[in-house]
Amino acid sequence: MTTAEAFQRARRPEQKLQRRDAILGAARELARRDGVRTVSLAGIAAEVGIHKSALLRYFETREQIFLELTAEAWRDWTRALHAGLGSASPGSASPGSASPGSAALVADVFARAFADRPLFCDLLAHTPLNLERNVSPEAVRHYKLTSLGAVDEAAALVARVLPALRMAEAREFVATLASLAGSLWQIANPAPALAELYASDPALAQACVDLAPRLRRTAEILLAGLEAAGGQGQSN
Amino acid sequence: MTTAEAFQRARRPEQKLQRRDAILGAARELARRDGVRTVSLAGIAAEVGIHKSALLRYFETREQIFLELTAEAWRDWTRALHAGLGSASPGSASPGSASPGSAALVADVFARAFADRPLFCDLLAHTPLNLERNVSPEAVRHYKLTSLGAVDEAAALVARVLPALRMAEAREFVATLASLAGSLWQIANPAPALAELYASDPALAQACVDLAPRLRRTAEILLAGLEAAGGQGQSN
Repeated sequence: MTTAEAFQRARRPEQKLQRRDAILGAARELARRDGVRTVSLAGIAAEVGIHKSALLRYFETREQIFLELTAEAWRDWTRALHAGLGSASPGSASPGSASPGSAALVADVFARAFADRPLFCDLLAHTPLNLERNVSPEAVRHYKLTSLGAVDEAAALVARVLPALRMAEAREFVATLASLAGSLWQIANPAPALAELYASDPALAQACVDLAPRLRRTAEILLAGLEAAGGQGQSN
Repeated sequence: MTTAEAFQRARRPEQKLQRRDAILGAARELARRDGVRTVSLAGIAAEVGIHKSALLRYFETREQIFLELTAEAWRDWTRALHAGLGSASPGSASPGSASPGSAALVADVFARAFADRPLFCDLLAHTPLNLERNVSPEAVRHYKLTSLGAVDEAAALVARVLPALRMAEAREFVATLASLAGSLWQIANPAPALAELYASDPALAQACVDLAPRLRRTAEILLAGLEAAGGQGQSN
């Protein structure tokens, strides 16, 4: 019996779960090492040691595997936000009377929660571009409920620490920063040849981005802007 | 003589330029119709009516063709900003004494300059993710000088209309909004099956994004945040 046959013959639920986990684990490791864009279904199957057709009993497509990893990453990211903000005291509730200390804390915790999770950031850029386009509507629906739930959970933490923000504004902050984390991570992690070019050419110095400080600064600007725009009739 | 041979035999500089333009034009039309992600080198060659090997005399890779279209789109976009902001009067120069009318104008002109250019937005998301990763360093350098130049030109327009912002802050505004335009466009333009799903499922309503209003609102928040954060020691 070949490995592929053995894999196909996993019949008991716990065996199936183990194999599912092995596939996700292999995809995770390859994507961390080489970047999401370079990892193929065949590469994942080879890493697990099975045939592609056996893998397709567990996942529809390469994209479904990565969408599942993205859902997992959103949950892990909300745990980091709870750890960083769960015990923070609420700042001032009145808009305009800014709570710079609390806003700086929120900006710092969010910037680190993204920057500490390079695979999550890489996946975030691929999600609307590729991952949501080659899976069944049911798989996207499942993923979207997870990501929207994570955004809501994160927004509730922000609104608790910064009571001057309404939930709708806190959601805007979270969704905007998540979009930026995806695209800025790609800019901050150029191909090696490109990184050399940036380092060697002063005219291109501005093309370089350092992810954590850039996200922290943009988070601070967004929070200051939302506080300043607050009370101007945004609905919740 | 086949079409491919005729193409290969373009020797005069003006013939070569014509053929280069024909390739760029075909790539532009295919990408507008089907999205950047689906267009292949073979598809572009077929649209022009030549063999892939003939096309490779003009461009290194598919990615170089799209990088060239992105550079062209940056230039077209700066022209739209000049048209929208060139004759606007400068607002107040003192930070904090916000110039809401001028900021609203800047936000509106930027939001429309992106939203009116769907191919530009699509390309912006693909640039750091894919396009810059499969071309020579020289081609990336050429592209980067164009994009950095366009960001500078756009930032100078913003700083003129909103003198409370320093050039470094105006550049932050432009670069952040451009990153967001790329990723939000992808979210605002889901695959047809996904668009149906969003429309039919109230739990997913928040996953929908309307590009122009979202960019306008985020631009306003960024400008308000930069004005509020102004004078806090940002260097130029």
